[in-house]
Amino acid sequence: MSTGKDISFFFNPRAIALVGASPRPGKPSQVILESLRQIGYPGTIYLVNPHYAAINGTTCYRALSEIPDEIDVAIFAVPASTVLEIMERTENIKGAIIVCAGFKETGPAGVTREEQLKALATQKGIRIIGPNCMGIYDTISQLDTFFTPEARVQRPPRGGLSILTQSGSFAQTIMDELARAGSGVARVVSYGNRVDVGESDCLSFLMDDEATKVIIIYMESVDDGQRFVEVASRCTQKKPVVVVKVGKREAGMHAARSHTGAIAGRYEIYRAAFKKAGIVEVEGYEGMKDAAKVLSTYQRVAGNRVLIITDGGGIGVSMADACEALGLEVRELSEGTRAALRSKLLPFVVTRNPLDLTGSVTDEAYVIALEAGLQDEYDLVIVTVLWGPPKLTELLADKLTVVRTKQSKPVLICSPGGEFTRRMAARFEANGMPVFATPESAARAAAVLTGRRR
Amino acid sequence: MSTGKDISFFFNPRAIALVGASPRPGKPSQVILESLRQIGYPGTIYLVNPHYAAINGTTCYRALSEIPDEIDVAIFAVPASTVLEIMERTENIKGAIIVCAGFKETGPAGVTREEQLKALATQKGIRIIGPNCMGIYDTISQLDTFFTPEARVQRPPRGGLSILTQSGSFAQTIMDELARAGSGVARVVSYGNRVDVGESDCLSFLMDDEATKVIIIYMESVDDGQRFVEVASRCTQKKPVVVVKVGKREAGMHAARSHTGAIAGRYEIYRAAFKKAGIVEVEGYEGMKDAAKVLSTYQRVAGNRVLIITDGGGIGVSMADACEALGLEVRELSEGTRAALRSKLLPFVVTRNPLDLTGSVTDEAYVIALEAGLQDEYDLVIVTVLWGPPKLTELLADKLTVVRTKQSKPVLICSPGGEFTRRMAARFEANGMPVFATPESAARAAAVLTGRRR
Repeated sequence: MSTGKDISFFFNPRAIALVGASPRPGKPSQVILESLRQIGYPGTIYLVNPHYAAINGTTCYRALSEIPDEIDVAIFAVPASTVLEIMERTENIKGAIIVCAGFKETGPAGVTREEQLKALATQKGIRIIGPNCMGIYDTISQLDTFFTPEARVQRPPRGGLSILTQSGSFAQTIMDELARAGSGVARVVSYGNRVDVGESDCLSFLMDDEATKVIIIYMESVDDGQRFVEVASRCTQKKPVVVVKVGKREAGMHAARSHTGAIAGRYEIYRAAFKKAGIVEVEGYEGMKDAAKVLSTYQRVAGNRVLIITDGGGIGVSMADACEALGLEVRELSEGTRAALRSKLLPFVVTRNPLDLTGSVTDEAYVIALEAGLQDEYDLVIVTVLWGPPKLTELLADKLTVVRTKQSKPVLICSPGGEFTRRMAARFEANGMPVFATPESAARAAAVLTGRRR
Repeated sequence: MSTGKDISFFFNPRAIALVGASPRPGKPSQVILESLRQIGYPGTIYLVNPHYAAINGTTCYRALSEIPDEIDVAIFAVPASTVLEIMERTENIKGAIIVCAGFKETGPAGVTREEQLKALATQKGIRIIGPNCMGIYDTISQLDTFFTPEARVQRPPRGGLSILTQSGSFAQTIMDELARAGSGVARVVSYGNRVDVGESDCLSFLMDDEATKVIIIYMESVDDGQRFVEVASRCTQKKPVVVVKVGKREAGMHAARSHTGAIAGRYEIYRAAFKKAGIVEVEGYEGMKDAAKVLSTYQRVAGNRVLIITDGGGIGVSMADACEALGLEVRELSEGTRAALRSKLLPFVVTRNPLDLTGSVTDEAYVIALEAGLQDEYDLVIVTVLWGPPKLTELLADKLTVVRTKQSKPVLICSPGGEFTRRMAARFEANGMPVFATPESAARAAAVLTGRRR
């Protein structure tokens, strides 16, 4: 059914309808109405529910078909058992977001219901997101169909990151994490059972979407392997696409029923497809979170040479271990840079890589080290900051930001620690410098920027 | 020099001396004096500095030798160039903690100085921790020689975890993280250049130390391989020993100068030694942090069978992936448990492993699932909690704690998310249930408890 036909109306709807609208607090449809109000959806919202004449002063239609307008997106927040009947009697909708559960995920009766839904939508030419999904959170068109209240799951601000996922729970969790970190998103699409619209359709749209700078896909399975590789290959010519493939275990379970070789090859097929399409694959939830954070700030770089600056020898060693484990090149400083650093810094500074400023470090030493390091032949710099050294001041973030913004190489901050450290991390992040709380997460983020993998 | 002779006086000093004591704010010796005051060191503190007659009303001796008492531990916070001279004229100290830098880490002159220090200490029978270290943070004897102010690096409360490390920066960073998480420690020893006391001496003491329930070693190199294996093997009979080996890269750098096979074997020798000694090896800073957190709460288990309970399908899949990647067995629920769950829970609950309570989850469903799961044949349970589902209440942590405390199996919470989630995580942790912010970190912690590795 995914024909590749235009789905852009989902991302710029003039008029939407909320089917199953309700004033009752906690009902999904009530949360969606509140979410739409919160985000400031600028188009027309039609409410549909035969049990109400009006909700909070807004007219409530008895049926979709009674709305005297063409609807771009109808949001179905009704019992699954009523979806088909409502859709059958509807002629005026282009697309539907079916958030309700009760389809193929619930067993044989649900599978039948989902097949009927698919046939009906095809027949009527209605494009579908879902069922069993959260739908769309879109800071550009200001659409929010997520039925989780802001008090539980915060919405991130506007940004250049778009996220595609089958899992609604994943979508809202990563949104909540990004919001907490102050990172922004453009479009988030949770397509659940994916009866129609999936990652290939969405990629087709997002590749030409100016608001989207980077795309992350949390993938349990692919909708159409061949088409996905074709579309993704074109997309990665224009902007980075990062994928985390989960459910490797499902392959393992199949393996128990089938013979090993064929199934072990299944995940290999995914990996080969990602590679062919120019996709950056990351590992698990942590890999995804680090990728989202770093790609919200920095663009990818051409090489994989990383300089580590540190004020703690032990953490520097951990940082170097983590970088090398992910295939980053921790090459030595050039002789010229070493000589320059030796002339400006205290004699016991270790002018290697990691460049160890030791516990006697000052703000100024970090500034000198970062300035010199950025001029050497590295693709990016990881600055590890431990806040024990007493001469470091709270102005460090501002001072390093000045150095960082004078040039284009990415500078990642790695800063593990407790309360004081977290407070200083917030300063770096307010300045647009992403902070990672462990050496391993900083290394994962760096590896995403270089696009290299072990 | 590490003769295995008793070093217990370092962990129960009756009288200590602070050599280089100073009233000047920010000086290491001033911070140490403040740290000793903060922790409430109950023994006698003698101050030594020829430039002062008294500091804050306390007599200041001109030299160690003038103190009319036997000193268990002399803390040297003086310029490196003066250490040897002071020690030469001293007859009344059993041990020294030499926090100052300026020894072998600084080049040829420092190497010579360190060799002279070693020879002198051997001759005089003085045991040494350091030089170039933070020394001891000990909640049992209430000793704290860390020269980083509490405002920058928080001190953890009393607990059963003891930590051994060469890296002072690592010691203070992990202490700061543990303090933030509310986890406690018994003894932390940072031995820096390790001219004398190292991990083998400390293990000898800690294995019979009642206050120490678990030992974590952050290891760049080993002091004496054969002795370490011998001591660690006896220690792991009594309590778990966890090691993170860093500086794998150093081996790599040697490899460039030497031939590959021999050096690739070097890290393999460490691994083999850890295995032989019954040590649990973890990976990197993250592995260490997760191990410290989980071992502060739970004891190790005999098997590796893990049950995953979740309210989000996608996160459940990630959790299962992460567990299986670390060699944990995500086996299905028994038929009996499945039947029991089906009779008590809503029909669309997925009674497999992960046990998916779906977005319709209630507090009560979690309670039922955890109670039933704990009675099935699992060694531990990971409860994944996403806070989107509207029927979950803030009482969940209390309700699950009641279930958890009625039995002995470890229950780990995995709860990724933003502000609301972090607030709820604090509730779980206040109840003594450790919370992990990603599926991968929960899996790493579980793997430490099972002691299994891929």
